[in-house]
Amino acid sequence: MKKRYTIGIDFGTLSARAVLLDAEEGKALSKDCMYVYPHAILKEIGGRVLPDNYALEHPADYIEALEYVIKGVIENNKIDGSEVEGICIDSTDSTLIPVDENNVPLCFDPRFADEPHAYVKMWKHHGAEKYMDMIKGEAERLAEHFVERCGSGISVEMTIPKLVETIKDAPEVYEAAHRILHISDFLVRLLTGKEARSSAFASIKDGWSRDKGFPSKEYMRSLDARLENVFEEKMGGEPMLAGTFAGCVCKEWADRTGLSTETAVAFGLVDAHSSFLIAGLEDGLALVSVGTSSGFNFNSFDGKAIGGIMSCGCDALAEGMTTYDAGLCCVGDLFDWFVKTGVPSAYEKEAEEKGISIHKLLRQKAQCQAVGEHGLVALGWWNGNRCTLANSTLTGVMVGMKLSTRPEDIYRALIEATAFGMKNIMDNYTKNGLDINKIKVTGGIAQKDPLLMQIYADVLDKELCVIDSDQTTALGTAICGAVASGRFKNTLEASEALCAGVSKTYTPIPENVSAYAKIFEKYMTLHDYFGK
Amino acid sequence: MKKRYTIGIDFGTLSARAVLLDAEEGKALSKDCMYVYPHAILKEIGGRVLPDNYALEHPADYIEALEYVIKGVIENNKIDGSEVEGICIDSTDSTLIPVDENNVPLCFDPRFADEPHAYVKMWKHHGAEKYMDMIKGEAERLAEHFVERCGSGISVEMTIPKLVETIKDAPEVYEAAHRILHISDFLVRLLTGKEARSSAFASIKDGWSRDKGFPSKEYMRSLDARLENVFEEKMGGEPMLAGTFAGCVCKEWADRTGLSTETAVAFGLVDAHSSFLIAGLEDGLALVSVGTSSGFNFNSFDGKAIGGIMSCGCDALAEGMTTYDAGLCCVGDLFDWFVKTGVPSAYEKEAEEKGISIHKLLRQKAQCQAVGEHGLVALGWWNGNRCTLANSTLTGVMVGMKLSTRPEDIYRALIEATAFGMKNIMDNYTKNGLDINKIKVTGGIAQKDPLLMQIYADVLDKELCVIDSDQTTALGTAICGAVASGRFKNTLEASEALCAGVSKTYTPIPENVSAYAKIFEKYMTLHDYFGK
Repeated sequence: MKKRYTIGIDFGTLSARAVLLDAEEGKALSKDCMYVYPHAILKEIGGRVLPDNYALEHPADYIEALEYVIKGVIENNKIDGSEVEGICIDSTDSTLIPVDENNVPLCFDPRFADEPHAYVKMWKHHGAEKYMDMIKGEAERLAEHFVERCGSGISVEMTIPKLVETIKDAPEVYEAAHRILHISDFLVRLLTGKEARSSAFASIKDGWSRDKGFPSKEYMRSLDARLENVFEEKMGGEPMLAGTFAGCVCKEWADRTGLSTETAVAFGLVDAHSSFLIAGLEDGLALVSVGTSSGFNFNSFDGKAIGGIMSCGCDALAEGMTTYDAGLCCVGDLFDWFVKTGVPSAYEKEAEEKGISIHKLLRQKAQCQAVGEHGLVALGWWNGNRCTLANSTLTGVMVGMKLSTRPEDIYRALIEATAFGMKNIMDNYTKNGLDINKIKVTGGIAQKDPLLMQIYADVLDKELCVIDSDQTTALGTAICGAVASGRFKNTLEASEALCAGVSKTYTPIPENVSAYAKIFEKYMTLHDYFGK
Repeated sequence: MKKRYTIGIDFGTLSARAVLLDAEEGKALSKDCMYVYPHAILKEIGGRVLPDNYALEHPADYIEALEYVIKGVIENNKIDGSEVEGICIDSTDSTLIPVDENNVPLCFDPRFADEPHAYVKMWKHHGAEKYMDMIKGEAERLAEHFVERCGSGISVEMTIPKLVETIKDAPEVYEAAHRILHISDFLVRLLTGKEARSSAFASIKDGWSRDKGFPSKEYMRSLDARLENVFEEKMGGEPMLAGTFAGCVCKEWADRTGLSTETAVAFGLVDAHSSFLIAGLEDGLALVSVGTSSGFNFNSFDGKAIGGIMSCGCDALAEGMTTYDAGLCCVGDLFDWFVKTGVPSAYEKEAEEKGISIHKLLRQKAQCQAVGEHGLVALGWWNGNRCTLANSTLTGVMVGMKLSTRPEDIYRALIEATAFGMKNIMDNYTKNGLDINKIKVTGGIAQKDPLLMQIYADVLDKELCVIDSDQTTALGTAICGAVASGRFKNTLEASEALCAGVSKTYTPIPENVSAYAKIFEKYMTLHDYFGK
């Protein structure tokens, strides 16, 4: 049968989801397939309870998910696996797994079954905290080139700290590992049976760049003599361009999934980036995602390094294009916190009577008021500040309460706090010379909260275009299946052809813009006072 | 029949309450008598709606209350009016009424029935706001001696602004007035049929002091030429010592109330001060009252003037003793605000199931935690800051919120905010050289909230003695009936003999004291940042 479909699989922290894209028509098929990892974050290994700052997973979750969701999305949409021309994977970044020469995770070896460091180290595994002073200190001493691309400095969630932790705390795992792989590269190797290394993870998390290569051997040696050649010896050498052809599906996995051995597999993407492909992979486009936390990412061919962001990497989505990652770590979480802990029963009753959520009731009540009417200003740091301050110890602040302050006033102030946080991130891009031409928006809250969206448009003083898709991550990834298959020359062309439309546009209201500009000044005064 | 009882009447903003004290036994009789003013704060006069900053009342409310509560408290306790040896009144301060030569309020004259300035100007009447710049400016220019005793400067709630407003806005009322009286002096005149002027109101609100007299004639002339001799011409000349003999009940009021014409009447007291008599009228004693708002008042024979308080006055309670007034304008109000607007239904349900108030449930949950555990620090300025900043435009602040913050954490932080506010007032006394020897506590919240009381003891690092009485204001006032009757030489002796015991003592817990001292530093950093 004629190949026309591509599969995109999004490997998240607790589940994986596959979608099907009709690359001929540029339309998503209606049914996705999800797999929730049965082991999830491990609480103990070999009977030993893991420390609080550990975040390990079992690689079986990923391998089983890979088979389950490919088979499932093909069956659910009643197509034939042989119609699938390409497949691409995205995953959390700097989620690492050590494997043997047969690409088998070391924890499957009975020798290492009780060894935590032989399992999947999740992006949020913080076991290397104790080595961070040394890791940062040596980088500074040697003026390592990669540090300037780390946004707010080397993070414990990057790759090098995880490697340092393994060699110091479990040298036998390090020695036994043939490769220590990003989970996405590991899964691509499973599918193709070949070596694979995507430039996306190497540039965003390993400190690699196309022009300057890896962190220096001298630096790696200074961290541990045995790490001198880690990138070549253990991580598979030169990275290949993300989203391009990595190989075809091998016999074993064609049999396991129903795909054909002619289905092309792409080098994987970072999950936080793949939405760009469905939004539009343009120079100067920012992609805002509003959910539990929020992202404010940006693409530019002007690849300068800037501070105040989480990270940036070249070749993460297209050759020569730099993708900048920034965001707020507490958005939907913050609104949920308030609804759970700060809203009286009268409001719960009213919402029930009206048959709407408490969130919606508060929005209805909050939207009637003029900008600034409630008199509150908040710093939404209930879960720390990720950008631009990179300080997880910061906490929430609210000022301006009176005896007349109502729950809807506080709710609106919390929305505004996140809007001001986003504006601060945008201003950081701008003052570093990265001009944002256009902003597209994705995420569940963006789809269903017009009050928040209008406040964001007014605070940012930018037109905001909501993308007409509720599966932007996996669908963006699916687009790369059509690059791997050769249907498009590169990701830029594929994105231009297959990106989604805009479901709604929010335009700034001039009087609100100027009113918010004044409140933003107060916000920044508080921000600077409490942030420094 | 033998005289042994005294009556104390507390004239509040919206009601009056009389109590009976057995001066022989030093015990309160069980039944009080209350009268709620039927007119209360007037919304309109002569069909004209009054401005928002007006607070006027009808003098009939006071006259009727006087008769009703005296008769009532005698009847309720089944005594004979002839057994009452003395009576004393306390009232709100700088609540003024213009009267004719027969002590009849001018608003009873048909000529002035539609004239707002002929009614009772309540303490919180702010109609003179427009004249405050002039009133303050002239006082500064002439270096008026009384300003230094005004605490945080001349307030619109003092007497002079109300006189200025009358002469400027209703000169015919001023001209027609034989006297412009504090309501307490007016009521004493009714009872005795004689001139009366209590030193309590003159010293706290009129700018008078025993050694320096009234504000200068030059100053009063500079405000308006016709005010030059206002204190002599319109207010009755030299003030007499508060709480001492003013005269006996006249025939008319003996007939109206059942008192005898041998019942002695005392010069009145300020309501905020009379609790001192039942607490103990000692040099160096502070009286903290915890209710809707809170007072932190202090008595000293060292009569120095200090800033950061509301006011101070000599001879307000005893000859040569200075009474200092300070406090927070939002305490019980603040806790009520939180319970009404910030507590979710699960808590309401739990309180209902346990058969306790939500306040009590929150206290139960909050009391288990260690000092500082919740990580929050708040400025309790939901209704402005009265002391030490005297800025009603300030608003509430809370810092330290996390996604794990619970309602009981916020509730406890609000209690602590008021404790820190009280500590700041105490420190202001101390750093001005007024050493607090002992603190007694009164008020509804003090009786029923041991968590708050322990936090106050720990934050203030002082033993707190709760007074064993729930009618401290009217009972303190009743004590002066026994001074007027000649049973005691003066208020100091009467208070020593008749003051109430202590129902409970709260002792600072050393580890909490040192933990709170650190948090108080953070509080003061926020206080100085947001207060200045």
